[in-house]
Amino acid sequence: MISIGVLGYGTVGSGVVEVLNTNQDSINKRANEEINIKYVLDLRDFPGDPIQEKIVHDFDTILNDDDVKIIVEVMGGVEPAYTFVKSALLAGKSVCTSNKELVAKHGSELLQIAREQNINFLFEASVGGGIPIIRPLNSSLTADEIDEITGILNGTTNYILSKMTFEGLDFDTVLKDAQDKGFAERNPEADVEGYDACRKIAILSSLAFGNQVDYEDIYTEGITKITACDIKYAKSMGKAIKLLASSKRVGDSFYAMVAPFLISSEHPLYSVNNVFNGIFAHGNVLGDVMFYGSGAGKLPTASAVVADVVDAAKHMNRNIMQLWSNKKLELADIKTAKRKFFVRMSGDAKTRLEEIHKVFGDVQLVTVPELENEFGFITSILTEAQYQEKAEKCQGIINRIRIED
Amino acid sequence: MISIGVLGYGTVGSGVVEVLNTNQDSINKRANEEINIKYVLDLRDFPGDPIQEKIVHDFDTILNDDDVKIIVEVMGGVEPAYTFVKSALLAGKSVCTSNKELVAKHGSELLQIAREQNINFLFEASVGGGIPIIRPLNSSLTADEIDEITGILNGTTNYILSKMTFEGLDFDTVLKDAQDKGFAERNPEADVEGYDACRKIAILSSLAFGNQVDYEDIYTEGITKITACDIKYAKSMGKAIKLLASSKRVGDSFYAMVAPFLISSEHPLYSVNNVFNGIFAHGNVLGDVMFYGSGAGKLPTASAVVADVVDAAKHMNRNIMQLWSNKKLELADIKTAKRKFFVRMSGDAKTRLEEIHKVFGDVQLVTVPELENEFGFITSILTEAQYQEKAEKCQGIINRIRIED
Repeated sequence: MISIGVLGYGTVGSGVVEVLNTNQDSINKRANEEINIKYVLDLRDFPGDPIQEKIVHDFDTILNDDDVKIIVEVMGGVEPAYTFVKSALLAGKSVCTSNKELVAKHGSELLQIAREQNINFLFEASVGGGIPIIRPLNSSLTADEIDEITGILNGTTNYILSKMTFEGLDFDTVLKDAQDKGFAERNPEADVEGYDACRKIAILSSLAFGNQVDYEDIYTEGITKITACDIKYAKSMGKAIKLLASSKRVGDSFYAMVAPFLISSEHPLYSVNNVFNGIFAHGNVLGDVMFYGSGAGKLPTASAVVADVVDAAKHMNRNIMQLWSNKKLELADIKTAKRKFFVRMSGDAKTRLEEIHKVFGDVQLVTVPELENEFGFITSILTEAQYQEKAEKCQGIINRIRIED
Repeated sequence: MISIGVLGYGTVGSGVVEVLNTNQDSINKRANEEINIKYVLDLRDFPGDPIQEKIVHDFDTILNDDDVKIIVEVMGGVEPAYTFVKSALLAGKSVCTSNKELVAKHGSELLQIAREQNINFLFEASVGGGIPIIRPLNSSLTADEIDEITGILNGTTNYILSKMTFEGLDFDTVLKDAQDKGFAERNPEADVEGYDACRKIAILSSLAFGNQVDYEDIYTEGITKITACDIKYAKSMGKAIKLLASSKRVGDSFYAMVAPFLISSEHPLYSVNNVFNGIFAHGNVLGDVMFYGSGAGKLPTASAVVADVVDAAKHMNRNIMQLWSNKKLELADIKTAKRKFFVRMSGDAKTRLEEIHKVFGDVQLVTVPELENEFGFITSILTEAQYQEKAEKCQGIINRIRIED
């Protein structure tokens, strides 16, 4: 029997308890051990809940119990999670976490401690909820040099953009609906401004490229400026607008960014809609691969946490994760990143075409009949700096959205 | 240093050599060992090829060399692969294979021998080419009871159906084009009749459900009867026709089949086109998950084989695969499987509607303006037996295609 302690009895924590109860037999069989929840750490009490008898309020009770071999950390936030997780690892207990802030900030150090202790620090649930992506990167894509990871990593913003697309609604209306349905937080900033996706792509990039990618270094733009009109242009081009979190190796340079992109219907992420997440990767021998599923939610996230618990139980004295170095990966300045841009401009296309040509050279015009007194166009491939310079020469740019080919 | 022997220097075998050479440094780093190809077994010689100095014609040379710790079997076919692999495992050498026939037929026994020897029998490349699916089923989806696996598991047929869809061509024309391009074999039977997909779903089902699923027991129907007209109906319904290999748990019954299905645009497999494969799974706590990528091809398949070699090298004296029991899983009679059917019928819809209603009850009519003197309809949910019985009462059924919702 392996005893575990669960830190936090919130949404994911209660999901972990539920999953372990629901699939008890098959989980124990796969772990080759009986998994037993001995403690649940929470500041609150849960009178009437069967979990109450396992509730403790002091982390040291769990830390000092030698019976406890695996800690599940599902509190979220850097502190006190970091202090708890680090002391657990140093005490020789494996840790499974869903905490993206913790992994993005301290993943390198915690992986290193786990390696030294010959135990495990696992974090499948920190990116993509229930979608297996950390373990495939760690142990499936090992024959490849990964040169791109691009994901739809935030379910809330994907739900909002999908709903705007399918129902023609504007951002504010859909956000309110998402909040009412519990798909968006009352304070939606972390989602809609791209901060959540940014931490997740930092984790994936660090793992894929082997060096610490600091999320503070990643250029991040949210979806708050995307309007119902932008979506009309997207549809008329047969494209979709998605919040992509992307990192790419181009020669010896590494680029990472989070921003809304126009993607075509041939892109594997095009049909990832609603609250689903999708993660696309490209390997130099494997080619394209994509993983799709529920990127959040109580049970899918708990499923990933419990799969980590099974793996930790199967590898009690054997470290299985690749490390990434704490040496920082220097990201290239995104001003040098090259792509096409879609630009929306006020005025009449015919009247302004000469001016546009003068500044942008050859462009591809895009018009939506119902949108009067404005038009759109697609530029040739430009660096961000070149685009910026040209855009400053033009009056009346309403919006610009990057294009991912 | 770990020495390996590669059995077979065909497409995949030469791909394995290429991948190991191309990504040598990162592969050795991830394996924590230098991987060295010591022998390549082939009946042929390859004068001028750098591999020639490693070519041997006698398997015993490899078997009897204690230096060789890992065997890569990429010959295909049951014999002599089975004899070679079994004796390698019994001699304490781990085996990595891309051979679906071998795994479908003898997987249970070979996994058991590897378990007893405390080594590994790995077969990521046997299903879905470069797509990680065996390892995720083995070590990521371990918190779940899998109740469905449905895949587009054959790139040739998916290419044919995609091309028929996008270009409106008929089966024979596209097959010839696929053969000319090397996407289809000169003898295409194993692909177009569904036999290849059948072996692959047998492997996935055995692994997911824990008991041997014999591929001979799986009802299998190919795509040779799908016509350009069927595709026109599919388009008019907003659906796609895909060759699905599917196994499902319904209560205590297990169903498995390979057949062309109509799927709607909301299905995660809808946009898996051309030679790509996609594998959809549903877990009782995870919900939906889908894996997408190159299902065949020299380098993607070799990438999966080499990832297995890395895993075998990292687990030299530790067995990591779940077993499945050699006790056969009794599949339910597909006559009891329930679904809607799309039926194409000759004649005039209006004239025949009363007759159709009498036999099939409420149906949903589907017409394609350019197709005269015929019409289509979608039945209510029926068992295969019920459909069969009703269909026998009607004259002039041109085709029927199952619908996957």
